[in-house]
Amino acid sequence: MKVAIAGLGLMGGSLGLALRERGHDVTGYDRDPAEAATAVERGCADRAAASLAEACADADLVVVATPVSAIAGLVAEALAANPTATVTDIGSTKGQIMAAVPAPGRARMVGGHPICGSEAHGAAAARPELYGGATWFLTPTLETDPERLAQLHALVGEVGARPVVVDPDQHDRIVALTSHVPHVLANVLALQVAEGDVDGHRPLDTTGGSFRDMTRVAGANPAMWIDILLDNRAAVLAALDDARGRLDAVSRALEAGDAEYLAQWIGGAREARRETLARAHRTAPADLVDLVVSVPDRPGAISAIALALSANGINIEEFALTHISPESGGEIRIVVAGDAQADRAVEVLRAEGCAAFRAEPGGAE
Amino acid sequence: MKVAIAGLGLMGGSLGLALRERGHDVTGYDRDPAEAATAVERGCADRAAASLAEACADADLVVVATPVSAIAGLVAEALAANPTATVTDIGSTKGQIMAAVPAPGRARMVGGHPICGSEAHGAAAARPELYGGATWFLTPTLETDPERLAQLHALVGEVGARPVVVDPDQHDRIVALTSHVPHVLANVLALQVAEGDVDGHRPLDTTGGSFRDMTRVAGANPAMWIDILLDNRAAVLAALDDARGRLDAVSRALEAGDAEYLAQWIGGAREARRETLARAHRTAPADLVDLVVSVPDRPGAISAIALALSANGINIEEFALTHISPESGGEIRIVVAGDAQADRAVEVLRAEGCAAFRAEPGGAE
Repeated sequence: MKVAIAGLGLMGGSLGLALRERGHDVTGYDRDPAEAATAVERGCADRAAASLAEACADADLVVVATPVSAIAGLVAEALAANPTATVTDIGSTKGQIMAAVPAPGRARMVGGHPICGSEAHGAAAARPELYGGATWFLTPTLETDPERLAQLHALVGEVGARPVVVDPDQHDRIVALTSHVPHVLANVLALQVAEGDVDGHRPLDTTGGSFRDMTRVAGANPAMWIDILLDNRAAVLAALDDARGRLDAVSRALEAGDAEYLAQWIGGAREARRETLARAHRTAPADLVDLVVSVPDRPGAISAIALALSANGINIEEFALTHISPESGGEIRIVVAGDAQADRAVEVLRAEGCAAFRAEPGGAE
Repeated sequence: MKVAIAGLGLMGGSLGLALRERGHDVTGYDRDPAEAATAVERGCADRAAASLAEACADADLVVVATPVSAIAGLVAEALAANPTATVTDIGSTKGQIMAAVPAPGRARMVGGHPICGSEAHGAAAARPELYGGATWFLTPTLETDPERLAQLHALVGEVGARPVVVDPDQHDRIVALTSHVPHVLANVLALQVAEGDVDGHRPLDTTGGSFRDMTRVAGANPAMWIDILLDNRAAVLAALDDARGRLDAVSRALEAGDAEYLAQWIGGAREARRETLARAHRTAPADLVDLVVSVPDRPGAISAIALALSANGINIEEFALTHISPESGGEIRIVVAGDAQADRAVEVLRAEGCAAFRAEPGGAE
């Protein structure tokens, strides 16, 4: 596949390394020629282009890997520069970016957001395994061409990430909870302790490991985070309200000396922590089940199916279109992990009006 | 030194290993004989005693290293069992424990709290370097015998920790900020994400590294944390109010789209984070300066000096009493890091009514 990557920092550079390791051809572009040169030197791209248009000219896929504030403009430019390429991005918010896509290009744009990163910056710090095991959100709209969604789904899996399909607005509400509010709390904690004064003692001088863990992301990349928080402010405000309500409940329990409440509360957090780890270390290969799904003949039906499965907690391990007629659906093959997910997937797909069956091993061949 | 350690879990066991490595004699006691046997087997103690009284009988120092709820009772028992030993503890709150010390034993009790730990539990996980580089709060009262404070100060430094002298109430307000509120926020985050539902999507399934860092301590040891939060509820409630006020300010800035506020806010957090790291990785050996201080002839004067230096941001690297007459003061030698701290220390000490001078190298000998 011929891939153009716009923005050769840590994220774009690492993606370039991962794609080239797997035999893809990568053209890089960065508005900073020095960064582009470093990227080529480190093997993040086969070559650097002098402009975005030049980078896109020959591409099957364009990945916009710049800070959030520049993404919408570069996506529109890329769609205009190449009339056939699929375009995606790796921005941390999706609603505003997807809403800004010009109408003629909407079928070719699939939003994306890999959940990984590093405290290091730039192509110099790029490494091909950065995306390994990471959730990589894909945010199609109902206008997105399902073949392009399926291609990107496969490519994301190829670099070791776990594609998760959600719609742009859902994405923004999810990351408000899992990423943006944690960042806000890390900043609040860091400042509260830094500005704290206990009769002349500076609490900051006596912090321990748990405080350092919890403030690791504090103050990270101000320019980027101002954009993210403002872009996603509605979802962040709602999630902050929720957090405040939870703090109020803890304060009331402390005032009342309610040990039983605290026990349940800490116990719940313990369960949540266990589940998070189980999810993060999902290393055992689950039994994969193939499903064949006939999709009704209407635009957006395939994206709607991917979104419905995801909303029901079913992750699509693989997602392939077969006998597809563009804009009208056809047949798709979906692979999910485990019998329980397969049964649930069939149920959800039928509720969506699709004929869905388990593929019989060797049956169709 | 003959040290008795009551409670041979991770903390007590690790302290035993560190003390024995440095040639001290350690008698251990644990109400669970199996834990005591493991501790002896692992070298955390030279021997296990069958009761606290037996462990204390011969000790110069008794360290109570049990969960917070058991500490006050065991401290009183240890003070009664041995009429000459110094007693300390490693509990995470100090005000209630120090207030509960029976009057006849108060001169012999120095509260303590090392800021370190592990996700592992029990003597099986003990390791001698656990305390290396950690802040170790010492919380004397004005009734505490200064010689005992000085001895414990030296011992804490010997196992690689950094002793910091504060009074019990100040300690509790400091750790509310640096430890207890971070724990509360970790639980709030874990539960908010675990209970979150975005149109059927489970945010917990798609968390990244920063969320995992921030919830590392979520749900930790419920029995212990219920005690800590309830014991220290006044300081925790005040710190939670402060945190809520800071969240309110961020929400107002987001509602107003105030990028300038966010820039200052994130920039401040960035500075705080840098300072935290600088403090944590303080590896360069500072130039140490010796001070000689004449202390007025009144009870509590030496503890008051240690507390005043600490409250002015001066850490006492070493703290030795010379020509001391119990209950009446005398001369002390204090070592601080760097000229700036030394100058400031002299100023603070003189304001406290003490004659303080830099020791002339080779002068007194």
